[in-house]
Amino acid sequence: VTVVGLSAGDVARLTGGDLVGDPTARIAGVSSLERAGPGDLSFVARSQLVPAFERTQASAVLMLDTLREVDNGRTIRIFVPNPYRSLCDVIDRLHPRVVVPWGIHATASLGAGVSWSGRIAIGANSVVGSRTTFGEDCTVGESVCIGEGVKIGARARIDVNVSVAAGVHIGDDVVMQCGARIGTDGFGYARAGTGHDHVPHIGGCIIGSNVEIGANTTIDRGTMSDTVIGDGTKIDDLVQVAHNCRVGKNCLIMAQVGMAGSTIVEDNAVLAGQAGLAGHLTVGRDARVAAQAGVIGDVPPNATVSGYPARDHRDVLRQAAAGRRLTRHVRTLERIARKADGL
Amino acid sequence: VTVVGLSAGDVARLTGGDLVGDPTARIAGVSSLERAGPGDLSFVARSQLVPAFERTQASAVLMLDTLREVDNGRTIRIFVPNPYRSLCDVIDRLHPRVVVPWGIHATASLGAGVSWSGRIAIGANSVVGSRTTFGEDCTVGESVCIGEGVKIGARARIDVNVSVAAGVHIGDDVVMQCGARIGTDGFGYARAGTGHDHVPHIGGCIIGSNVEIGANTTIDRGTMSDTVIGDGTKIDDLVQVAHNCRVGKNCLIMAQVGMAGSTIVEDNAVLAGQAGLAGHLTVGRDARVAAQAGVIGDVPPNATVSGYPARDHRDVLRQAAAGRRLTRHVRTLERIARKADGL
Amino acid sequence: VTVVGLSAGDVARLTGGDLVGDPTARIAGVSSLERAGPGDLSFVARSQLVPAFERTQASAVLMLDTLREVDNGRTIRIFVPNPYRSLCDVIDRLHPRVVVPWGIHATASLGAGVSWSGRIAIGANSVVGSRTTFGEDCTVGESVCIGEGVKIGARARIDVNVSVAAGVHIGDDVVMQCGARIGTDGFGYARAGTGHDHVPHIGGCIIGSNVEIGANTTIDRGTMSDTVIGDGTKIDDLVQVAHNCRVGKNCLIMAQVGMAGSTIVEDNAVLAGQAGLAGHLTVGRDARVAAQAGVIGDVPPNATVSGYPARDHRDVLRQAAAGRRLTRHVRTLERIARKADGL
Repeated sequence: VTVVGLSAGDVARLTGGDLVGDPTARIAGVSSLERAGPGDLSFVARSQLVPAFERTQASAVLMLDTLREVDNGRTIRIFVPNPYRSLCDVIDRLHPRVVVPWGIHATASLGAGVSWSGRIAIGANSVVGSRTTFGEDCTVGESVCIGEGVKIGARARIDVNVSVAAGVHIGDDVVMQCGARIGTDGFGYARAGTGHDHVPHIGGCIIGSNVEIGANTTIDRGTMSDTVIGDGTKIDDLVQVAHNCRVGKNCLIMAQVGMAGSTIVEDNAVLAGQAGLAGHLTVGRDARVAAQAGVIGDVPPNATVSGYPARDHRDVLRQAAAGRRLTRHVRTLERIARKADGL
Repeated sequence: VTVVGLSAGDVARLTGGDLVGDPTARIAGVSSLERAGPGDLSFVARSQLVPAFERTQASAVLMLDTLREVDNGRTIRIFVPNPYRSLCDVIDRLHPRVVVPWGIHATASLGAGVSWSGRIAIGANSVVGSRTTFGEDCTVGESVCIGEGVKIGARARIDVNVSVAAGVHIGDDVVMQCGARIGTDGFGYARAGTGHDHVPHIGGCIIGSNVEIGANTTIDRGTMSDTVIGDGTKIDDLVQVAHNCRVGKNCLIMAQVGMAGSTIVEDNAVLAGQAGLAGHLTVGRDARVAAQAGVIGDVPPNATVSGYPARDHRDVLRQAAAGRRLTRHVRTLERIARKADGL
Repeated sequence: VTVVGLSAGDVARLTGGDLVGDPTARIAGVSSLERAGPGDLSFVARSQLVPAFERTQASAVLMLDTLREVDNGRTIRIFVPNPYRSLCDVIDRLHPRVVVPWGIHATASLGAGVSWSGRIAIGANSVVGSRTTFGEDCTVGESVCIGEGVKIGARARIDVNVSVAAGVHIGDDVVMQCGARIGTDGFGYARAGTGHDHVPHIGGCIIGSNVEIGANTTIDRGTMSDTVIGDGTKIDDLVQVAHNCRVGKNCLIMAQVGMAGSTIVEDNAVLAGQAGLAGHLTVGRDARVAAQAGVIGDVPPNATVSGYPARDHRDVLRQAAAGRRLTRHVRTLERIARKADGL
């Protein structure tokens, strides 16, 4: 990765920030407050980071613009409303994206009628089924398996060892990290005597635009209808999305979350790590499901739920506190109750 | 996927159902009650679906035969005892299985002494170790890695990117979905000074007939004995089965379940999503383990357990309800207890 | 796997054990007490195994040297301080490691400047990016994808279908099982209007020596700093380690554990299956986190925590027991509280 230097003044211009300090100082890299050295840019996005800022060796920081009064007497400060977001723009300039080797590797296998717009990169040993189409500037890594009749939008980044089943539809600007499995058969069985017969999965799997899917995550196709992931939703590693789930727009779904079949997650919902959702329920718009929560009924819009079975997070905290208080008096309360029962 | 049309009468004959309505009506597809349109067949398997049936645009439904009196005045009804099961048969007729391209792709690598009966399909870039044997009509996708000396029965479907380690035994009619890892080394270490020495895993891994294994699921081989999955057991995505586990017949193991080493799951048990089983315990026949339950001791046959540590589900519900009731009175009970303690 | 026989006397010499019985008896295999037959060596590492020892058909056992008085009148006993550890040495002798076919398969693709010391094995269809370096005697399975500029120490075993992203550093004697994903992008987003912008991940991923990583486990690279796994740490299957986590030495991390970003796990900590750690916290040296525990704050060194939110395990047990006791009296306590409230 080539590193192109910027000046502190360049950073201020790039981010629209308000610079206090030497605009000619060189910025060659980006690092956290603790690890930064001379030439590094860091960031102070919350007041809790002020102590680390006092000790940092960074040459400059992007600082939340409500922290105007914070000064350690040596570090250049560039005030912006969203330091983390601004930092992303600086990183993009300092670390230009890897140059993609456009073209199709000699060992890739393409079925009949595969088509694409403009440029495409397909890595070694990847297989693309017949009639699959790509938009412009897609990059497909090595050992990727894409089935027949898949539709993929522009600028998809499909990392190594991903598999996409036949007939999946994928929007623009989608990222699928290593080992993601898209459009696999769902876990749907009908009782047949003492055993279970697999229900044929003839539904589809539709991934919106600007969706990102983490490593080794699995998204099953629908049984008769479709599994749908809405535009802008981001999914972390090792997540399971079962058949017929419909996830809205701009949701955040963290690592190891599991959703059972036919569940609906509305726009902007946040599902924290290892949360589990039973099937056939709805998590409302802007709801937040805490880490490890077990959701077994509908969650209203804007609610924050935790625990198992998941319920309002404040109730959970209140009940846990009450439990701890009663625990201290358990012997006394038991004695009182036994005496009362005995009367 | 080619769609072959049926008449409503054909559907009744195929399912052994009792038809009320026009037997000549054309059925071209299958869909859920909400999404079905003219020409679609849907199903009413529970009385809870009757309101959706009232509004459906489906041309015909497979309906539970205890719902004889349910009629919306327009939809053809075909009464059967198990509508979901019957629907599978109709789907199999309407959507004939994809035609498998029998043969071995030029880029597949087969070791010495690989053998099979009748037909076989092996996809691009797949590798099969020496002395591995297949029954008839097996299909192996692309980028599959199968080790040496593996025994695979008839009609196996091994999807893309699966790996099967050396010496694994697999029965007939097994499905392994993308990214499943079968026969990997278990997590067994012996203390060695301040560190840990890996215990050599010389045991096997035996997968019965009619077993289905989900995407990115991992099944470790045994340490000295075998890891065993019984006939007819179905395993969902992202499940972990550790070394020496023995799973019985016709079990259902849902997504993200984890089993620690040497645990036994008896026939027909159901483990719901994200449940965890500690090692060296037994879950009895026909037991049900609720989603996210943490099982740390034996579960008797036919029991239903939930929570952590997992215990009888009715007890869990009762205790949770009692907790909520006492919470309401926490201040009063605390005051009473303090007064009693003070006396 | 070729099996080379040993005598009971050979086993005693190999393990430094004290033999009671016939030193000329042949030992041809190793098995658990229940499954062992004539010619097999088994082990008795805990007094709980004594009943199984009474019934075993094994010819000899490695027995904990504090169990001197245990004798079933027929089985040869070899007393050692750590039977399980000693068994590993015997297995290594009885089952010599598979002979690695050194060399680079014709279908492997190596970028410019890939280098290694001594011998190397790279399997079919594997891809190694330019400037990646290996120490001596590394073995890389089939369909492995290793990015550019990766540094790998001596004797690495990289199983089939693994992917290692560009720039990852890996120590000596590392094992990565099938489907492990090392150095993938983390789940880091900055709010951008109603959506989320991915934060470029320019940090690294450093894997120490003697680390073992399970099947389908995912370890993300750092955002700006590095994700680090310390020497001797063992990680099971389907584990998620997020960006910027720093795991110490000789930790044991069991299946399906999840760690959110920037969390620190100190030396010798044990994280049991399905435990979840929130981000930006520290689990201290020698701490133990129980299965399914949800850790949302720092865990002190040597502590044992369980439950959600995770807290001292004895407190959890005490509170659970108190809860069960109060539950029995809920009606009475409620009546008392209502009466007191009514006064």
